[in-house]
Amino acid sequence: MNQQQKYILNLQRKSRERKREQAFVIEGRKMFEEAPADRVKMIVASESFCKSKEGAALLKGKKFDVVSDSIFETLSDTKTPQGILAVVKQQPYSFEELLGKERASFLLILDHLQDPGNLGTIMRAAEAAGVTGILMSSDCVDIYNPKTIRSTMGALYRVPFVVSEDFAGDIERLKKAGVSTYAAHLGATISYEGADYKKPCAFMIGNEANGLSDEVAALADCKILIPMAGQVESLNAAMAATVLMFEAARQRRN
Amino acid sequence: MNQQQKYILNLQRKSRERKREQAFVIEGRKMFEEAPADRVKMIVASESFCKSKEGAALLKGKKFDVVSDSIFETLSDTKTPQGILAVVKQQPYSFEELLGKERASFLLILDHLQDPGNLGTIMRAAEAAGVTGILMSSDCVDIYNPKTIRSTMGALYRVPFVVSEDFAGDIERLKKAGVSTYAAHLGATISYEGADYKKPCAFMIGNEANGLSDEVAALADCKILIPMAGQVESLNAAMAATVLMFEAARQRRN
Repeated sequence: MNQQQKYILNLQRKSRERKREQAFVIEGRKMFEEAPADRVKMIVASESFCKSKEGAALLKGKKFDVVSDSIFETLSDTKTPQGILAVVKQQPYSFEELLGKERASFLLILDHLQDPGNLGTIMRAAEAAGVTGILMSSDCVDIYNPKTIRSTMGALYRVPFVVSEDFAGDIERLKKAGVSTYAAHLGATISYEGADYKKPCAFMIGNEANGLSDEVAALADCKILIPMAGQVESLNAAMAATVLMFEAARQRRN
Repeated sequence: MNQQQKYILNLQRKSRERKREQAFVIEGRKMFEEAPADRVKMIVASESFCKSKEGAALLKGKKFDVVSDSIFETLSDTKTPQGILAVVKQQPYSFEELLGKERASFLLILDHLQDPGNLGTIMRAAEAAGVTGILMSSDCVDIYNPKTIRSTMGALYRVPFVVSEDFAGDIERLKKAGVSTYAAHLGATISYEGADYKKPCAFMIGNEANGLSDEVAALADCKILIPMAGQVESLNAAMAATVLMFEAARQRRN
């Protein structure tokens, strides 16, 4: 395995390396097609992919390296690699970018989210719901985790996000900027659909197993509940986020 | 490995065996605690679990077998087994049970769902939204798949479901029973929030990759769209189902 291949493997496997290099690896046709051209640092394709009609079309006019199918399998994070990957530069966003410009601010605030697939799915749903930005606590799973990237289905390239070094402070900054903060909380007494989400708003979503910590929930302007039938104790974090975001989207359309 | 252990492994791994035996394996404290006592056929615990205070309390007064921790690991479908599993009898539901009794019928119709975790998550969200029953096409992933079971978080014990041998026929029966059927469809022009879901209703949700097949979508009374911002092509099946079910739940509360 040569240096370049070791570099890719390190980026796939280690959050620390991704941070140091300010880069990450994307895989597959869809993530490759949607990657912003000015952020792509390196392209690697498998022999079979290059030979395929589709591969040839996708790679036309681009600089890329070819590796054997077996090497590609080693480099890939998936069980059935599609034969195309790229190293992409990370995109730093400012706090202000989370607030959006063209529409009233609409944020997600994610506290200590741990499941890579969940985080990616939430980002995908967030783009669809029209979220302007995502603020994450620094103990959330790495957004550049390969599984998270896959689950975003490309939303990673388009939804502004900030991993906060001062989570409580940034939440206060949001509030000062006129954003109402709503904490999804099982102990709340107000149902989520009662609030006006046409105004600048942010939903706070907690850890999969434990929900929002008390300290973070205490920062919210309002605690809201998603009423539940049956004996279900809670929704998973991605579901709860989706219910809230699409209620806001619905209100904003009407 | 003895006969009993082989039997458990077969149930864990093979949908065919689960069908033949009309049984399935549940794992973990939560699924064990919530299992209906009259359906539990066999309980197996690891040595460490039996010795733990919590394990002793959970198992008190019950008949169970003890196996070594290493055997338990072999029997378990999870990477970090909790030390408790049970074989549970399947519960057959009738078509009529899907319609519910205490409230207006509220169904999910799932076509060719393939992801085990997705299916389980959908069932969990369905219980929370107050769904009266789930109708599944026979090519859906097995609801008794270990990963599906885990993702239901116990909803499997409580939400009536039928795997249909005559999917189109059963959808027609639903319609004759006065249930309006709504197909989530990217080609629809009507936004989902326009319909009245206080009346008996059913949402049709399609395969993760391809959505509803044209034949199945054609059976729906109405095709509905979840409007999406950004460049997202679609929501994942569990997300789409959640948005629709919780809109119905919201309407039914108000």
